[in-house]
Amino acid sequence: MEQKIKKIALLTGGGDCPGLNAVIRAVTRTAILNYGIEVIGYKFGYRGLYNNDFIHLTLDTVSGILHRGGTILYSSNKDNLFDYLVEENGELVKKDVSDVAVENLKREGVDVLVVIGGDGTLTSARDFARKGVKVIGVPKTIDNDLASTDVTFGFNTAIDVVTEALDRLHTTAESHHRIMLCEVMGRNAGWIALEAGIAGSADIILLPEIPYDINKIAEKVKEREEQGKNFTIIVVSEGARPKDGEVVVAKIVADSPDPIRLGGIGNKLAGDLEKLIKDHEVRCTVLGHVQRGGNTSTYDRILSTRYGVAAVELMIDGKFGEMVCLKGDTISSDSLENVIGQKTKNVNIDGELVQVAKKIGISFAE
Amino acid sequence: MEQKIKKIALLTGGGDCPGLNAVIRAVTRTAILNYGIEVIGYKFGYRGLYNNDFIHLTLDTVSGILHRGGTILYSSNKDNLFDYLVEENGELVKKDVSDVAVENLKREGVDVLVVIGGDGTLTSARDFARKGVKVIGVPKTIDNDLASTDVTFGFNTAIDVVTEALDRLHTTAESHHRIMLCEVMGRNAGWIALEAGIAGSADIILLPEIPYDINKIAEKVKEREEQGKNFTIIVVSEGARPKDGEVVVAKIVADSPDPIRLGGIGNKLAGDLEKLIKDHEVRCTVLGHVQRGGNTSTYDRILSTRYGVAAVELMIDGKFGEMVCLKGDTISSDSLENVIGQKTKNVNIDGELVQVAKKIGISFAE
Amino acid sequence: MEQKIKKIALLTGGGDCPGLNAVIRAVTRTAILNYGIEVIGYKFGYRGLYNNDFIHLTLDTVSGILHRGGTILYSSNKDNLFDYLVEENGELVKKDVSDVAVENLKREGVDVLVVIGGDGTLTSARDFARKGVKVIGVPKTIDNDLASTDVTFGFNTAIDVVTEALDRLHTTAESHHRIMLCEVMGRNAGWIALEAGIAGSADIILLPEIPYDINKIAEKVKEREEQGKNFTIIVVSEGARPKDGEVVVAKIVADSPDPIRLGGIGNKLAGDLEKLIKDHEVRCTVLGHVQRGGNTSTYDRILSTRYGVAAVELMIDGKFGEMVCLKGDTISSDSLENVIGQKTKNVNIDGELVQVAKKIGISFAE
Amino acid sequence: MEQKIKKIALLTGGGDCPGLNAVIRAVTRTAILNYGIEVIGYKFGYRGLYNNDFIHLTLDTVSGILHRGGTILYSSNKDNLFDYLVEENGELVKKDVSDVAVENLKREGVDVLVVIGGDGTLTSARDFARKGVKVIGVPKTIDNDLASTDVTFGFNTAIDVVTEALDRLHTTAESHHRIMLCEVMGRNAGWIALEAGIAGSADIILLPEIPYDINKIAEKVKEREEQGKNFTIIVVSEGARPKDGEVVVAKIVADSPDPIRLGGIGNKLAGDLEKLIKDHEVRCTVLGHVQRGGNTSTYDRILSTRYGVAAVELMIDGKFGEMVCLKGDTISSDSLENVIGQKTKNVNIDGELVQVAKKIGISFAE
Repeated sequence: MEQKIKKIALLTGGGDCPGLNAVIRAVTRTAILNYGIEVIGYKFGYRGLYNNDFIHLTLDTVSGILHRGGTILYSSNKDNLFDYLVEENGELVKKDVSDVAVENLKREGVDVLVVIGGDGTLTSARDFARKGVKVIGVPKTIDNDLASTDVTFGFNTAIDVVTEALDRLHTTAESHHRIMLCEVMGRNAGWIALEAGIAGSADIILLPEIPYDINKIAEKVKEREEQGKNFTIIVVSEGARPKDGEVVVAKIVADSPDPIRLGGIGNKLAGDLEKLIKDHEVRCTVLGHVQRGGNTSTYDRILSTRYGVAAVELMIDGKFGEMVCLKGDTISSDSLENVIGQKTKNVNIDGELVQVAKKIGISFAE
Repeated sequence: MEQKIKKIALLTGGGDCPGLNAVIRAVTRTAILNYGIEVIGYKFGYRGLYNNDFIHLTLDTVSGILHRGGTILYSSNKDNLFDYLVEENGELVKKDVSDVAVENLKREGVDVLVVIGGDGTLTSARDFARKGVKVIGVPKTIDNDLASTDVTFGFNTAIDVVTEALDRLHTTAESHHRIMLCEVMGRNAGWIALEAGIAGSADIILLPEIPYDINKIAEKVKEREEQGKNFTIIVVSEGARPKDGEVVVAKIVADSPDPIRLGGIGNKLAGDLEKLIKDHEVRCTVLGHVQRGGNTSTYDRILSTRYGVAAVELMIDGKFGEMVCLKGDTISSDSLENVIGQKTKNVNIDGELVQVAKKIGISFAE
Repeated sequence: MEQKIKKIALLTGGGDCPGLNAVIRAVTRTAILNYGIEVIGYKFGYRGLYNNDFIHLTLDTVSGILHRGGTILYSSNKDNLFDYLVEENGELVKKDVSDVAVENLKREGVDVLVVIGGDGTLTSARDFARKGVKVIGVPKTIDNDLASTDVTFGFNTAIDVVTEALDRLHTTAESHHRIMLCEVMGRNAGWIALEAGIAGSADIILLPEIPYDINKIAEKVKEREEQGKNFTIIVVSEGARPKDGEVVVAKIVADSPDPIRLGGIGNKLAGDLEKLIKDHEVRCTVLGHVQRGGNTSTYDRILSTRYGVAAVELMIDGKFGEMVCLKGDTISSDSLENVIGQKTKNVNIDGELVQVAKKIGISFAE
Repeated sequence: MEQKIKKIALLTGGGDCPGLNAVIRAVTRTAILNYGIEVIGYKFGYRGLYNNDFIHLTLDTVSGILHRGGTILYSSNKDNLFDYLVEENGELVKKDVSDVAVENLKREGVDVLVVIGGDGTLTSARDFARKGVKVIGVPKTIDNDLASTDVTFGFNTAIDVVTEALDRLHTTAESHHRIMLCEVMGRNAGWIALEAGIAGSADIILLPEIPYDINKIAEKVKEREEQGKNFTIIVVSEGARPKDGEVVVAKIVADSPDPIRLGGIGNKLAGDLEKLIKDHEVRCTVLGHVQRGGNTSTYDRILSTRYGVAAVELMIDGKFGEMVCLKGDTISSDSLENVIGQKTKNVNIDGELVQVAKKIGISFAE
């Protein structure tokens, strides 16, 4: 049965993430070296599948990419072929073009489609599976917020980057007796803030899961002063919000005559704190995209490689419609039908990690 | 003559900067090991001198600090004892309290004061020299904009941090075909942007010294597309400005009911470019204080150590009122009277480095 | 019951390991901030306990050490108080001095002893537990070879260092068409070689668990040449050995008139390969102690902090004689009686990681 | 006149060095973008020139290589076409085959040959210049021992790597009260040891230029103990030697039945010190090839880019037979006739850097 797989295709969708190239490399090498399978890669995720825009993936193509961030297949953020913007009769309309994709796969003789992506990208993967396409999913998010897998690649690299930045901010905070905020990624989940905050010796961590009370921040600053510590490091998740307020998302005010882009929650909080606490300077650093680029960490290189090999093994075992995942330290899989639609995995505010943070004196300003 | 120096004091002023601790260590070790001089350090720059708030610097105190960013003596940004905010009769008034400082130095038996700082801090050093205090200056700025010295410590570390960030932004820009802006420090001088831009493989560098034409940015983006490069990396100096506009400085709008902190030139330009160029996403990262904190680079550790040793040698040679500097690769010195008031050292727009950048195809959007 | 713990003592034994300071910090902060427990730390492991040589551990003492390698309590490698070298009547004799240690603990009013160490150190911890001392163990080894815990801190930092070295060796190997060997730590277990080999894109990995056939190495080199790859990266575990030979341990030949220190297996193999393969240069790098020093990785900082907090929670729960461990991603504990004497955890040669390595084309030269 | 240059060739010779790719990129981009010159690159240095084995260098070929160590043109260490090993009548003989190279250049229409290399490689470049070939030289060595230029690229990266290793060794030395030796590259010049030793906070630096007295090492160790410092970090240049002895070079004893490769001076000294100093463990780390591989430092990326641009400008100005160099911070050039045969640039034992090291308490064990 398995012998029938002669050709597979890969695509990467959603925001880029360290480890994507490592998965591409592992899938390609495993398929070619062990099973003589031909491998192609669609460019820009589903858009490439729609346009039949692909490259051949050989041992040479994937040489030297293990450690490199980004994806050699490129990615796009929003393309959903089941609801795709196309031009018809001179007008832009949204329609289901998934049949075009299925046709392209057939024409190229692709037996299995390996989809590496986050929630949105994998939802489409499930929908293609429902249409009869043999699909294998590989989960991807630096935010670590997928319920179906304990850890995703990219997350460890992200917290490495944030932790190094916190190390840097410490010296300048200490020298100037400042309050330093560092806004980090994570969308509606606080994993990056929590783990990097513990590793980077933060004094206060603000999570989406625990709305903050700004007065508790001021109390912690004062408490630290009384202990002879005249600086405070605060890690703010981009999805954090005050108890009595909303999430503030950075945005462009395009019509504004004058200044232009408004900061997110980190900058808002910096402003609020400057008004509340008079005897400290407050500074905010928004790390932004440096968190998701650059060299892949050792941990993520290994995890991505395991995911890539497992994806091929799943197809060899005929387990289509499944997604690779990690449970504890064991690679396993789950069906895309189960996985899609699951609630985002949020930080358990009664869980071990939050308790650990509290025990060593980190405040959540709750 | 030299034998008369029995005790010296150190202070650090202005923004913190990698290498400060290395200077403190080198001064302390050289003074103690070679000349049996006692060393103290005032805390928080001139404020500590005014309050007679100091610590003893011994071989133990300066052990293990060579590589650490920040300053173990702390720093403050704005304290000028010749125009100092003090409370008098319940009111805050500004007055010249430099005599208090001179008294403190006398009472502690300090023979020489070593001042490590930037323009403002060294201006006060000169003024103390005019009052008869034996002063030695050591220049400090990550911006590398002092006319009196070819290179200052902290600059190499800053461009290391920016270059690493640019490396990271490359992979994500490339994967998504984005325009990535990275706003960097440097005040009114473009050195950090220029050198990190060259090292980090930027496509466009925007300097304070060369006002930019936004249409030239769009042209460069298009030109790159035609070469098959669908992403563009732009390094923006915080002091850059459009040909027909002003510098935009990030600021807090404290009275704003709603959003809060307005971005600087990087974010403004991101907004402008999103309006001008429709088929690319634009993202801006503002590196902020990570540029001036953290571990000191190898280059800066050596330069700072040379500065520190030279500062002690100057005083042993009786050359008071002088500032250590680097000319070519040679340590020398110049009088504070000459140095203070010199124009900021800006990027020479006809100089070798700008020419090198242009020759390898970097655009300045002029 | 728990309220009775008023004072605890820490000690670190065996080879140093990134994360030791993070454990010390977490234990100290958790004990002081949550339970008002006083904390002291014996210097140089059991030797300090014997000599009653300790320091007080306060919030200040453990400030700024989270990321630092090594141990602020110092360590010694071989001191076993149950078989300790002491001078008696002018002669050095070995005897059981554990009663002295028990006395010292009593005199200082130490309620619980937290022992951080590897096999040997924890064996003594068990023996003290048998004597009635309330002991909590924390496992430590960069080699990751303890059966009782899935992961130990220090291991991730070690593979980070090795992986970065492999990244560096790649460029020089590729430029010169060389065979590059890199000898890494791990004692009789191949974990460091295996994981760093996967992450660092090794072509051949030699493990203690899989004796190597040198002809298979030559075959792999030839196979790579035929694929147009004229260089080969080999990671050699220090405990690796040829099928027909012994482990070669680096050693000093003190009596040798001439040269002096003989290399280990890496250098032996380099010599053997130069004889066997004529058309490639062979170079060997022995990473040595850089693998166990320096800044602690993000992953290890978090894991160590969890271990430290858990150690205090164990004692609060009255679970003496237990050792903290990690199962999957869950912190738990096991009794020292169970743990000690367990066989070293070796690489499972049929396990997932070895299979992953083989699937992507890594040879074990078996 | 300059318009006549239509095609140029590049080659890299000698040991690989971070920055080679940056030079290749800068030459290629400058030539193509500014002067429409076609660029080819010979593979494996002169060997490729002899075999007419080359690749075309385009904007695409040199994309993404700025930061990468090694050389995309490969290198070989020993090929001298003026005394080249060729097979003739079934026998290997050495003969002058430089005419073949000249013929190849003519046949390909190469107007100018850019040679990037060290002493040996540039000597051949001069010899080709004497034969009428239009040659431009670019100096390369991580050892920084060329008299004709103040700094060479690769050197800064090398001292970065060594300094980071010394940072790592510090924590383990301190934890165990050890004497740690670190043997570094540099051939017969001590620059790497000297600068990395200062930056990495070494206690003793052993240079080829200052033969060491082992008793002075022991004295320094004792002196540190008396100051409460129970560990000592020694940086040993591979070319260092005892006052009464020879340089010990690591070598393979191929005929040895048993172990195989004998260590160099670092390991010899470790052996000697273990005999001399009884109460400290001694460990030696030989950094080896990690010093010359991996990512290129910021400083070296900029310097290499300047060299590459300058090489093209030299040819445009018709200055053939010249070599690019750096004097102070100014790019200039010198004739290969002058440069070749100059004595190696050794550390000036009375110069500023050695004095700086001594002033801060570093011993040279002289």
